[in-house]
Amino acid sequence: MDLQRNLKLTIAYDGHDFSGWQIQPDRPTIQGTLVSVIEHLTGETTLPQGSGRTDAGVHALAQVASVSTQSSIPLLNFRKALNDILPAAIRILSVEEVPPEFHARKSAVAKTYQYRIHRAEICPPFLARYVYHHPYPLNEALMIEAAGLVLGEHDFTSFAAVDPERKKPEREREDLEVNNVRTIYSSAWHRHGDDLIYTVRGSGFLHHMVRNLVGTFLMVGKINVTLPDLRRILEARNRSAASATAPASGLFLLGVEY
Amino acid sequence: MDLQRNLKLTIAYDGHDFSGWQIQPDRPTIQGTLVSVIEHLTGETTLPQGSGRTDAGVHALAQVASVSTQSSIPLLNFRKALNDILPAAIRILSVEEVPPEFHARKSAVAKTYQYRIHRAEICPPFLARYVYHHPYPLNEALMIEAAGLVLGEHDFTSFAAVDPERKKPEREREDLEVNNVRTIYSSAWHRHGDDLIYTVRGSGFLHHMVRNLVGTFLMVGKINVTLPDLRRILEARNRSAASATAPASGLFLLGVEY
Repeated sequence: MDLQRNLKLTIAYDGHDFSGWQIQPDRPTIQGTLVSVIEHLTGETTLPQGSGRTDAGVHALAQVASVSTQSSIPLLNFRKALNDILPAAIRILSVEEVPPEFHARKSAVAKTYQYRIHRAEICPPFLARYVYHHPYPLNEALMIEAAGLVLGEHDFTSFAAVDPERKKPEREREDLEVNNVRTIYSSAWHRHGDDLIYTVRGSGFLHHMVRNLVGTFLMVGKINVTLPDLRRILEARNRSAASATAPASGLFLLGVEY
Repeated sequence: MDLQRNLKLTIAYDGHDFSGWQIQPDRPTIQGTLVSVIEHLTGETTLPQGSGRTDAGVHALAQVASVSTQSSIPLLNFRKALNDILPAAIRILSVEEVPPEFHARKSAVAKTYQYRIHRAEICPPFLARYVYHHPYPLNEALMIEAAGLVLGEHDFTSFAAVDPERKKPEREREDLEVNNVRTIYSSAWHRHGDDLIYTVRGSGFLHHMVRNLVGTFLMVGKINVTLPDLRRILEARNRSAASATAPASGLFLLGVEY
């Protein structure tokens, strides 16, 4: 049983009751929960590597993690056994065996996020955990126009979190790359009933980048930031140029491409 | 300001984190939360009367409560102010002034409940609080047929909770009527994607009645109870004749008619 297998887990989670993806002492996290259940199932102490961290309250439809294991449990049984012991807020959608060189973060070539703003005057209680409720006036046409301005390759420093408190080891950090240049392949707002939804696909995202983009688009919608302002903010490469970070509840990691 | 007004509140709630509708010391309940926020807003101690209790974990799209108040706050402001201080899991959908004789429970002439069973192998984490996840084989055609057997006027004692521990004052109890006879106007299962949904409308419902009906329909779907068995259970007028109570998470009070 000395066979080491590299597994790719695809994971959905309701992030509301978790302190984000990354394992932390004495706090419920997605990664920490996975460490516990894998240890419970296999007896091994592993550290599943996510495609990136998601913050407290952020959700995922298809986060990806890679984990190395000596367990010989068949893949389908592995998935079922993990789901049997995981809380209902975390579901393993699939378990696949991948080549040893596959790494959920380093091998990722693109990611897609979605941000959901609920526009009705009263937010249904069943949506409150999964949206940002903003019933106030917004010029949505301007926001739709603004979304296109971030397309392409840019230095996104203006939209990256300034995290003096982050003291995690380098290898644990999502934004391993030495610079803040990322490429946005698609960026668009659309309406779906009472929801105003932003979908963005890019080569990678800096910490808080999607929520900072959404916060700035909201300022555009409130006519506090013009489209030329938005171009200047992007070009400033300075976090203090952009707007507030939009709340975590509306953000979903939709998927990761390899 | 001696004007006493009788208000009809229509309320949606996510019951997952509450110990049911009815106020209890040291436990979060919907009624108890309303008492607090109304007191905070008006300075009055009131006891909103619900159309009926819902159990811990049961949800409502449109529960109705009546409450008497001396507050002269305009109705629209009253609704907005309550929503501003209520947790996001409880939303006041409307506040209307009604005649003094209106009572949310005593004046109700019909109620509709829905019960949602999620049939996919993996339950999305975003649905887990709002469904009963049952991915195992069920003869759904038989369940659909069985639903019709409870239509009309019956003594539903076989589907009423036996609650020796219930020591609440009579006036607080939903099943005030001296007998267990109720009329079911419609009762049907239908499929909506991966959800198998039971919708039932009746003159009133005994404690646990919808969940006990669903529990028995599930036994029909598992071929452990035949349609003639179901008729015998109904006629037995004895709780021990029927099956287990289905979990609370799948149950929604859809609305109350007056």
